Amino acid sequence: MKIVMISPNYDTRAWEDALWNENPDLEIEVYPEDTDRENTDFVLAWNPPKDVFDKYPNLKVVASMGAGIRHITKNKSLNAEVIVTKIEDEQLIEDLQYFVLTSVLNYCRNIPQYVLQQQQKNWNRVAYKQPKETRIGVLGLGNIGLPVAQILAKNNFKVSGWSNSEKEIESINTFAGEDGLSAFLKDLDVVVCLLPLTDDTEDILNEDLFSKMPKGAYLINVGRGAHLNESDLLEALETEQLSGAALDVFQDEPLPKDHPFWENEKITITPHTASVTNPASVANQITENYLRLKEGKELKHIISRKKGY
Amino acid sequence: MKIVMISPNYDTRAWEDALWNENPDLEIEVYPEDTDRENTDFVLAWNPPKDVFDKYPNLKVVASMGAGIRHITKNKSLNAEVIVTKIEDEQLIEDLQYFVLTSVLNYCRNIPQYVLQQQQKNWNRVAYKQPKETRIGVLGLGNIGLPVAQILAKNNFKVSGWSNSEKEIESINTFAGEDGLSAFLKDLDVVVCLLPLTDDTEDILNEDLFSKMPKGAYLINVGRGAHLNESDLLEALETEQLSGAALDVFQDEPLPKDHPFWENEKITITPHTASVTNPASVANQITENYLRLKEGKELKHIISRKKGY
Repeated sequence: MKIVMISPNYDTRAWEDALWNENPDLEIEVYPEDTDRENTDFVLAWNPPKDVFDKYPNLKVVASMGAGIRHITKNKSLNAEVIVTKIEDEQLIEDLQYFVLTSVLNYCRNIPQYVLQQQQKNWNRVAYKQPKETRIGVLGLGNIGLPVAQILAKNNFKVSGWSNSEKEIESINTFAGEDGLSAFLKDLDVVVCLLPLTDDTEDILNEDLFSKMPKGAYLINVGRGAHLNESDLLEALETEQLSGAALDVFQDEPLPKDHPFWENEKITITPHTASVTNPASVANQITENYLRLKEGKELKHIISRKKGY
Repeated sequence: MKIVMISPNYDTRAWEDALWNENPDLEIEVYPEDTDRENTDFVLAWNPPKDVFDKYPNLKVVASMGAGIRHITKNKSLNAEVIVTKIEDEQLIEDLQYFVLTSVLNYCRNIPQYVLQQQQKNWNRVAYKQPKETRIGVLGLGNIGLPVAQILAKNNFKVSGWSNSEKEIESINTFAGEDGLSAFLKDLDVVVCLLPLTDDTEDILNEDLFSKMPKGAYLINVGRGAHLNESDLLEALETEQLSGAALDVFQDEPLPKDHPFWENEKITITPHTASVTNPASVANQITENYLRLKEGKELKHIISRKKGY
């Protein structure tokens, strides 16, 4: 029994080291150099190629290398019975909390604008916003959205949150479901997307949603690239329905050189760096599930193929 | 009796409006158009010109328009008996707290670097630092430095502080006096200057101080421009003793067009915007002191001419 890693365009060495560090007896192979695919039952994957799972007729588990799993569940070659697991990493959540806090403070303090002004030797003051007068709405109040909303509230921002089902949370104004979306959006200065990516949330950041926010609102996307309708965003910036956006995720990554986002000064681009999984801190989740499979026990961090998270 | 405003190169209208709003009966004049200087006893000032106070032989009070008072106390034309008062603004303190939080998060997350990379369409990830592994030292634990240190500690940074006299503060590692300075500096990732400007602290951010920090440390100056030896900073960036700096205050403001800081990509410049006094929120402190003077009562927010703060 062995683990096969399927993650093209990705340096797998840190993962190999981390897995061996947890269990020196592990056999690890890396696609496409792996052998004996008939007998492979445990795969560790990130962005697996189309049709790749056809080559593994006896696959039992595909473990994602991160919190996202749609790159696996959307792969049409994956049989419905195969178990898909995700990484649950407390550090990732903390990293996202501070990344979003950085992004909203930069919105309040116009730091990206000052960095650009500096190149023009331009001493031009722009009024700043105080956290207590800045209304931030967090889309998604799950295991990531909730702690992000909480750190913003702890730092004096006026925070509201939107989720699928009704929730009650201290010092956060909550809204739920499609019916609650317009009321949630209508008074926001900033909307932060931290939703899981599902068929329902794909393309949710679109013209219709932007039009429900006050003119001049600001967008922060740290969900997934597919949450955002990229041409709708360009249009909303052009018409000034939105004043700007901070984007950490994109439909295509790395963002192609000819993409119009690069040259748009209203957009601040970070290269998918809000939270980066450190293999050393999560490898034990993979090795534990690998042993559980071997011993016939139930695996941890299994996602619902039906719900998509 | 009247208030005379002396603040060349400064739009005094917002102050006039705010003072009249507090007390519609006030008589306000603006230097150099003011009259009857023999009988002027109350001046509101920011950066008063050299020798200007010679024109006011019966001056009793000079009120600063902000928290800084050295622009007044260092004016050689000011008699020793004249009372100098400062503004105490809770909002200024809160604004400084969030400005410093923004600056240290940007240091951790390399946001200024990403803004510059975006212009090169460069998708290059740089490792980030977590607050819990980032050691920040706050120079000055007075009515500004202390709340700044506290908000950083609340956001998981490892915070230490340095002050003139010994202090004990929860979750902040404190150092005091000249003897404690080296020990304070030697393990820091970031030093934040929030000292008052006095003869003792002028030029304190110099080669000697930088050399006591670990190689590659980072400087944030939100004190006063005169705290920093600007050529020592350029030298420390050149030798990589410091990795970068975020500066909000400068020896000359606005920063002159030919100043080498503008073109240095290791320096992030903001145009003295960490905290900006809102006349409307502090005008009552001026009108109250004006009435107190009129009624022979003791004034509030008097600074010690000897201590310089």
